[in-house]
Amino acid sequence: MVKRDWLFKANHQVHAAASFTMRNILESIMGNIDVTQTGKPMIHLGHGDPSVYPCFRTSPVVEDALMDAIRSAKFNGYADGAGIDPARSAIAEYLSRDIPYNLTTDDILLTVGAEHAIHVLLTALASPGANILFPKPNYPTYEARAKFNSLEVRHFDLLPEKGWEVDLDGVKALADDRTVAIVLINPGNPCGNVFAFEHMQKIAETAKELGIMVISDEVYAHQVFGEKPFIPMGVFGHIAPVVTLGTLSKRWIVPGWRFGWIAITDPIGILHKNGIVDCIKSCLVITADPPTVIQGAIPRILKSTPESFFVNINKLLKEAADMFFEKLKEIPLVACPHKPEGSMFALVKLKLSAFDDIVDDVDFCMKLAKEESMILLPGMATLNHIWDAFGLKNWLRVSIAADPTVLEDAIGRIKAFCLRHAKDIGQRKVCPPM
Amino acid sequence: MVKRDWLFKANHQVHAAASFTMRNILESIMGNIDVTQTGKPMIHLGHGDPSVYPCFRTSPVVEDALMDAIRSAKFNGYADGAGIDPARSAIAEYLSRDIPYNLTTDDILLTVGAEHAIHVLLTALASPGANILFPKPNYPTYEARAKFNSLEVRHFDLLPEKGWEVDLDGVKALADDRTVAIVLINPGNPCGNVFAFEHMQKIAETAKELGIMVISDEVYAHQVFGEKPFIPMGVFGHIAPVVTLGTLSKRWIVPGWRFGWIAITDPIGILHKNGIVDCIKSCLVITADPPTVIQGAIPRILKSTPESFFVNINKLLKEAADMFFEKLKEIPLVACPHKPEGSMFALVKLKLSAFDDIVDDVDFCMKLAKEESMILLPGMATLNHIWDAFGLKNWLRVSIAADPTVLEDAIGRIKAFCLRHAKDIGQRKVCPPM
Repeated sequence: MVKRDWLFKANHQVHAAASFTMRNILESIMGNIDVTQTGKPMIHLGHGDPSVYPCFRTSPVVEDALMDAIRSAKFNGYADGAGIDPARSAIAEYLSRDIPYNLTTDDILLTVGAEHAIHVLLTALASPGANILFPKPNYPTYEARAKFNSLEVRHFDLLPEKGWEVDLDGVKALADDRTVAIVLINPGNPCGNVFAFEHMQKIAETAKELGIMVISDEVYAHQVFGEKPFIPMGVFGHIAPVVTLGTLSKRWIVPGWRFGWIAITDPIGILHKNGIVDCIKSCLVITADPPTVIQGAIPRILKSTPESFFVNINKLLKEAADMFFEKLKEIPLVACPHKPEGSMFALVKLKLSAFDDIVDDVDFCMKLAKEESMILLPGMATLNHIWDAFGLKNWLRVSIAADPTVLEDAIGRIKAFCLRHAKDIGQRKVCPPM
Repeated sequence: MVKRDWLFKANHQVHAAASFTMRNILESIMGNIDVTQTGKPMIHLGHGDPSVYPCFRTSPVVEDALMDAIRSAKFNGYADGAGIDPARSAIAEYLSRDIPYNLTTDDILLTVGAEHAIHVLLTALASPGANILFPKPNYPTYEARAKFNSLEVRHFDLLPEKGWEVDLDGVKALADDRTVAIVLINPGNPCGNVFAFEHMQKIAETAKELGIMVISDEVYAHQVFGEKPFIPMGVFGHIAPVVTLGTLSKRWIVPGWRFGWIAITDPIGILHKNGIVDCIKSCLVITADPPTVIQGAIPRILKSTPESFFVNINKLLKEAADMFFEKLKEIPLVACPHKPEGSMFALVKLKLSAFDDIVDDVDFCMKLAKEESMILLPGMATLNHIWDAFGLKNWLRVSIAADPTVLEDAIGRIKAFCLRHAKDIGQRKVCPPM
C-alpha cells in the first residue's frame, strides 16, 4: 500500500461560530496589553467576574457547602443527565418563592453554567427552517451557538431611549410561523437595565399572540440596585411558556464554578406537549454534566447563604453604578445614556467624531489595552459581529463590578485616554460635557 | 393580530443521537428495578463507577487538594477556554513521564470529562464528507456524538480470539481518502483488554500508511492488572499524530467530578498544520469549561497522590477480575472468553440457545433487573444499536469494580437467574461448563 499524505481536515464551521464569542474578542484585546510598558497593573472590566476582588469574595457558606460535599464522599460518582434530585428540588423551591407556581424537581435541569444551558436550549430548538428572536444588543454566546446550529436569527431592538425596553412592534414584525422563541436577558446584559412588571407582561402577551416560547436569561437575577425590583419571567408562565436560565455564577460570585440550571415554567403544558422538554433532556444526555460534587453543595448554598451577603453585593454594585455614572460625565468624549440599574454592566457610547485617531469601538479597546493596560468589551462583540448594520456601532460594555478604588482608577484611565485621543485636547467646546 | 397556535417544534436529531447513549439504555433497565419486590438491594454493575464503595474511595490527597483550591479563593473566576496554565502544565508533566516527548502547556486542553473531550474532538473532525474509524464494540458516546455531528462512521473489529486486538486488515480495507482518524480505547472499554507494545506500533504504522490521526482514549490509563503494562499511544507520536483523552475520573475514582483533558502528541506537527488543534480550541471556546475550582486542584492531585493508592486500586481490580473469571465458570449459560486485564470491565457472552425464555442481551438485562435488582449493560449499548449486524449480539458488559462481597453477591444472582431461565434447569449436559 502506498503511503497517503496527512490530508485530513478540520470542521471550519466551528471557527465561524467561535469568532462570535466574547472570549475570542477579549483574547485579542488582551494580546495588546504589556504592563511592563505602561507600568500600570491590568484592569479587566471586560467580563462579569469580580471574584478576583476581596470585597466581592463569595460567602463562606458557599465555600463550606462545597467542602462538606467533598468530605461526605457522597458526590464523587455519576449523576443522572438532569442532575441529582436534592439539587434540582432545592432550585425548584428557591425559584418558586418568587413566582405563583410551585416548580417541582422535574422542572429543573442542571447545566455546566449558562454557556451549557444556552448550548442545550438552542440545540433543542434548531429544527430545520426554524428561526429565533434575539435582542440587539445581545450576549454573544447566543449568536455563536445559533450560528453553529444553523438556527436562523432575527434581531429585535432594545431601545436605549426607553431604558433598553423591547421594541415590541419590531418583535411582531419579525416573527412568522417558523419562529420558535424570543430571548430576553433580565437584568440586562450588556445593557444593565431591568424590565418593569408591565413591560414584561406585554412581552408575554406578545409571545402568546405569536405562539412562541420565552427564553428568559436570568443569570443576573436579583442583582438590581435601581428603582425597579427584579421580576422573574416565570411570573407570566400562564400567558406564555417560559424557560428560565439561572446560575450560581453571578449572585454567589463563583462564575468559574460553572454551575447553572434550566427551569421550565409551563403551567399550560405546551413545552411538554411540543416535545421541547424531552428534547432538552436528550441534549443533556449527549453533553457533559456539572460535577456531582458541586451539585451536592447546592441545597446548602441555596438555603443558607445569608441575605446580608446579597444585600452587601447589591450595595457595592449600587455604589459602583453611582460613581461610574457621575464620574463618566466628566469625560466629554463618551456618554452613558442609561444609568445601570441591574446586572454588572454599563453600556457607554463613544462620541466618535470627537476623537482624533480612533476609528471605532474595537480600535478604542485595542488602543486602551495597549496604552492603559485595561480591558473593556467593544460593542461589536455584543452585536453579532455585523456591527455596522446593527445601529449600535461604537458602544462599549464596561463591567462596574470591581473594587471601588480599581473602578476609580479605571475611570481615570479612560478619561486620560480619551483626552489624549481627542481632536483638540482640552478644548471642551468640541464636545461639551453632558 | 390573530392568535397563533403554539406550533414550535423540537430538533429531532437530538433524540436520534441520545438513543445511542449508555445513559438512556441504563435508565430504561433501571426502570425495571423494584427492590421492595425482590427484597434485595440494588447492585449497579452497569457503569464504571465504584466511587460508592468505601474500599474504592478516592485518596484523601484528592479531597484535600480540592478543599485547598476552595479555601484559597483563587479559583472562583473564569478560566481561559483551554484551562488555567498550572493545571495544563501539571498534566503535561504527568503525561510526559511515560512518553519520549516533553509535552508542554500548549499541548494540553482541559475538558468537562471525557464526554466533553469526545464531543469536542468529533465536532472538530466532522468536516463535510469525512469518515472516522471506530472499534466494534465501542464506547457508546462516540456513536452518539458522531451521529449528532453527521460524521460517517466505519467500524473495524476487535477480535475476541486475539484478546480483543484490532483487526488491522479490516482497518485498511475500510479507510479511504476521506478518513480522518481511528479511535482506540486502551485499556479497553468495553473489552477489559490491554494492547501490547508491538500491536500498538502496528496500529500507528497503519495510521501512517492511511494518512490518518490516532485518537487514543486512555480514560483507564494505568489501570492494568494482567501481564501487559499500560503503554500510552503517545509513545508512537513520531509515527502518526496522536490525540489522547484522559480524565481524573477512573484512576482517581472521582467520575462525578467530570474533569478531563485532550493531549496533543504531534512531534511531526501535522495536527497544527492541518488546523485540527486550532479547531479543537475553537470548539472549546463555544462549549462549557471544567470548573476553575477543580482545575485549581489538579497540580496537587497529580503530584501528591501516593503511589500506594493506585497500587491498592489495581490490586482490588485484579482480585475482582480473578474472582469474577473463576466464579463465572460455574455458570454454564455464559462465557467470558478473555479474562479482564485492564479498565474495569469484563465482556461476557450469553449462550442464548441454552436459555428457555431469554430472547437476547437486552431481554436478559431487563429481566435480571426485575428479578434480581441488578444492572448490567447489554452488548447492544456498546454496539451502535445495530447489534444484529455487528456480530457481537448477546454479550453483556459487567463492571467488576465493586466491593468484593457485592461482586460475589452479584455473581450469585447472575447464576441463580441463569439457572432459573435455563432450558433444562440443572441439566448440565445441555450446556457443559467451560
